[in-house]
Amino acid sequence: MSSKNELVAKAEKPGEEALRLHPFYRGKIETVPKCIIRDFDDFAIWYTPGVAQTCKEIEKDPEKVWEYTNKANTVAVISDGTRVLGLGDIGPEAGLPVMEGKALLYKYLGGVDVYPLCLDTKDPDEFIRVVKILQPTFGGINLEDIAQPKCFHILDTLRKETRIPVWHDDQQGTATVTLAALINALKIVGKKIDQIKVSMIGTGAASVACLRLMIAAGMNPGNVIMCDIDGILHPGRDDYKKGDPRYDFCQITNQEGRRGGIPETIIDTDVCIAYSASGPDVIKKEWVASMRKDSIVFACANPNPEIWPWDAKEAGVRIVATGRSDFPNQVNNSLGFPGIFRGVLDVRASVITDEMCIAAANELAQTAADKGLREDHLIPSMDEWEVYPREAVAVGLKAIEQGVAKIHASRQQLLERASGIIKRARYQAQVLMESGIIPQPPIE
Amino acid sequence: MSSKNELVAKAEKPGEEALRLHPFYRGKIETVPKCIIRDFDDFAIWYTPGVAQTCKEIEKDPEKVWEYTNKANTVAVISDGTRVLGLGDIGPEAGLPVMEGKALLYKYLGGVDVYPLCLDTKDPDEFIRVVKILQPTFGGINLEDIAQPKCFHILDTLRKETRIPVWHDDQQGTATVTLAALINALKIVGKKIDQIKVSMIGTGAASVACLRLMIAAGMNPGNVIMCDIDGILHPGRDDYKKGDPRYDFCQITNQEGRRGGIPETIIDTDVCIAYSASGPDVIKKEWVASMRKDSIVFACANPNPEIWPWDAKEAGVRIVATGRSDFPNQVNNSLGFPGIFRGVLDVRASVITDEMCIAAANELAQTAADKGLREDHLIPSMDEWEVYPREAVAVGLKAIEQGVAKIHASRQQLLERASGIIKRARYQAQVLMESGIIPQPPIE
Repeated sequence: MSSKNELVAKAEKPGEEALRLHPFYRGKIETVPKCIIRDFDDFAIWYTPGVAQTCKEIEKDPEKVWEYTNKANTVAVISDGTRVLGLGDIGPEAGLPVMEGKALLYKYLGGVDVYPLCLDTKDPDEFIRVVKILQPTFGGINLEDIAQPKCFHILDTLRKETRIPVWHDDQQGTATVTLAALINALKIVGKKIDQIKVSMIGTGAASVACLRLMIAAGMNPGNVIMCDIDGILHPGRDDYKKGDPRYDFCQITNQEGRRGGIPETIIDTDVCIAYSASGPDVIKKEWVASMRKDSIVFACANPNPEIWPWDAKEAGVRIVATGRSDFPNQVNNSLGFPGIFRGVLDVRASVITDEMCIAAANELAQTAADKGLREDHLIPSMDEWEVYPREAVAVGLKAIEQGVAKIHASRQQLLERASGIIKRARYQAQVLMESGIIPQPPIE
Repeated sequence: MSSKNELVAKAEKPGEEALRLHPFYRGKIETVPKCIIRDFDDFAIWYTPGVAQTCKEIEKDPEKVWEYTNKANTVAVISDGTRVLGLGDIGPEAGLPVMEGKALLYKYLGGVDVYPLCLDTKDPDEFIRVVKILQPTFGGINLEDIAQPKCFHILDTLRKETRIPVWHDDQQGTATVTLAALINALKIVGKKIDQIKVSMIGTGAASVACLRLMIAAGMNPGNVIMCDIDGILHPGRDDYKKGDPRYDFCQITNQEGRRGGIPETIIDTDVCIAYSASGPDVIKKEWVASMRKDSIVFACANPNPEIWPWDAKEAGVRIVATGRSDFPNQVNNSLGFPGIFRGVLDVRASVITDEMCIAAANELAQTAADKGLREDHLIPSMDEWEVYPREAVAVGLKAIEQGVAKIHASRQQLLERASGIIKRARYQAQVLMESGIIPQPPIE
């Protein structure tokens, strides 16, 4: 494994290329025709006067909008720019390159059309209202990079009050991929999710969502010790208000009544999941050395994990995962959202339930297991393309089972549909590159 | 010229094809990559971690968002669905096919990327607030199909209070193309805009905007007689409230104090411009027969003009224009917005002034004149592709001259830029069709 200096140099390289290539391409997605234009007479079909007929049909039967427009394949990635990557509240304009990048991944990996929308408001209730007003155009909403605690209120409200599915990738997406890695890690060490003791470092959106989903997947909340900058969560804390999920966590976690900081959190646990501050000094070797036998550490801070993987291994940890693509076991949101939303759209699910997330996590875990489960191969990587249609099928089938899908189809039908759409998206990108429409970058 | 029955049959054909082909294509635009994807490592440039560098640069210098993202080429077409085509308040979902069609035209004719956004609110102040909140993503806003009188309040407010240019196509777009046709018609008959007497039938958004722009272009408002369903506008009318542009028109038009209905409006005028109700019985032959010598009639209602062109001609009218593509002299908005917004974006104009609209109208008129001005060739048609870059240049140069452009360039530079972008958009569509990404439609 590389030294720290090599790693820092490697981590800086994409940033330099980004600064060089962003002004060259001036945007990462654009719009193109989806329908035929044989000659100018065709505009009389796609626009006035012909289009009026389709408008009238939708007015009579609003369900037809899913059939006559691209609504069924269009998702809004919406952010207010208040917590972009690890950069904090940098504003909606500065957040736009991230949202465009996400739109690119959505299309290339999942065949989903995305409009990145950066909102110039910091008020959570106004944010909620704008998303509701935007519903007619979209088949779903992906919330992104919103500060906490308002992100909890925004997601929880929108999940209840919209007609289309709403997803906050920093919550549900992260939780789904983390759960997939945990499922396989536990399989390797032969432990059960309902029996393990778990330490969690950080109480941000990712940690909150991970814990919520792991509880839904069978984890005993009493066996979880969660710690933030002010120490371990327990019922005596009064810094979280009612309505904040962390208020509830103070009540239901930490059954044994631990007090203290990070070392007291980690000691004598089977699994440590950290989504806290960029390391590598947040978690010390001696602390993970105090974990139970066959310990599992997910150190997911970016760009640097809370502890370097080799340090954790030296301290006796059996399985390590991080958020970095240059280490094994990358817990990477990009493994989740494109396939999950593909499945959601393909069955026209009205919501994305926890069970659908768990189904996606299980399928993600199984996809890795099918290629041979190893301590350094917990989850697939982004370039294993079958990940995405498989997730789509798992999510779609679960939605159908739960009665939240408008479109019913068999496993085989869903697989063909998702595979076809994703293959078309990749071919489309290839055609645009080969034709020179997307030019080669200038030589450095 | 075709008989009425043939015309009705012809008008129905695009509607039938629309109903057949909309569910086949399921949308008229989609998103594609605009940047290179050589392998999966490139995602580290376009998304995390590399993208963070561009975010930080934009945070330091917000102007960089125009360079690092597609903002500079992205326009929102926004409607609340309260007055879609001639169909009335059919709602935001039923309006979506029109907005998608407009996005298609914007890209194919002007190389502009458009996100169609249909808003689920009928409240004009909420509409205004949403548009303001959406600004960070967009280089401009195109308002569409909004009921009156709120469309006047919405446009006037947004033109003053946004950082990016706002355009209401049903107002400014229609007015620009109508003015272009009028310029050439007056040239043919040898009359001057500041001397003619003008009758206007209808006081909807199109009529209001036409009159505003024609006044800005030199027409004497006192020489205009305007008429709506309640008769001719005059200072004694109390049905329009202060703040409504039609209240002002009651004060400043109709200097001679005419009273009456449509015939009393039309008599003894040089030009009659009608944007009222679908005909063909709204304006009678004998009424246009009472106009001055070398009379000009623009009967622009859709789908049927207020008077058939052959009836107007028989009654002695010299020049007739309509909104229909199957008659000569189609006053067609699609001749305006793609080229005008191309020019606006190419110089990063902060507003779209009346003078920029007039410059576009003059260029549109000149483009037709360059091919030979005739009574049946007042304006170009959509398939004359040079229309769009020429308009873009005229609009861009005017914006530079008025000091509302952020980017300065020469006529030649602007022409090369606009032509290049538009040619690329057409080639892109061709490549997508030839590769089979956009399939051929099923045989009838």
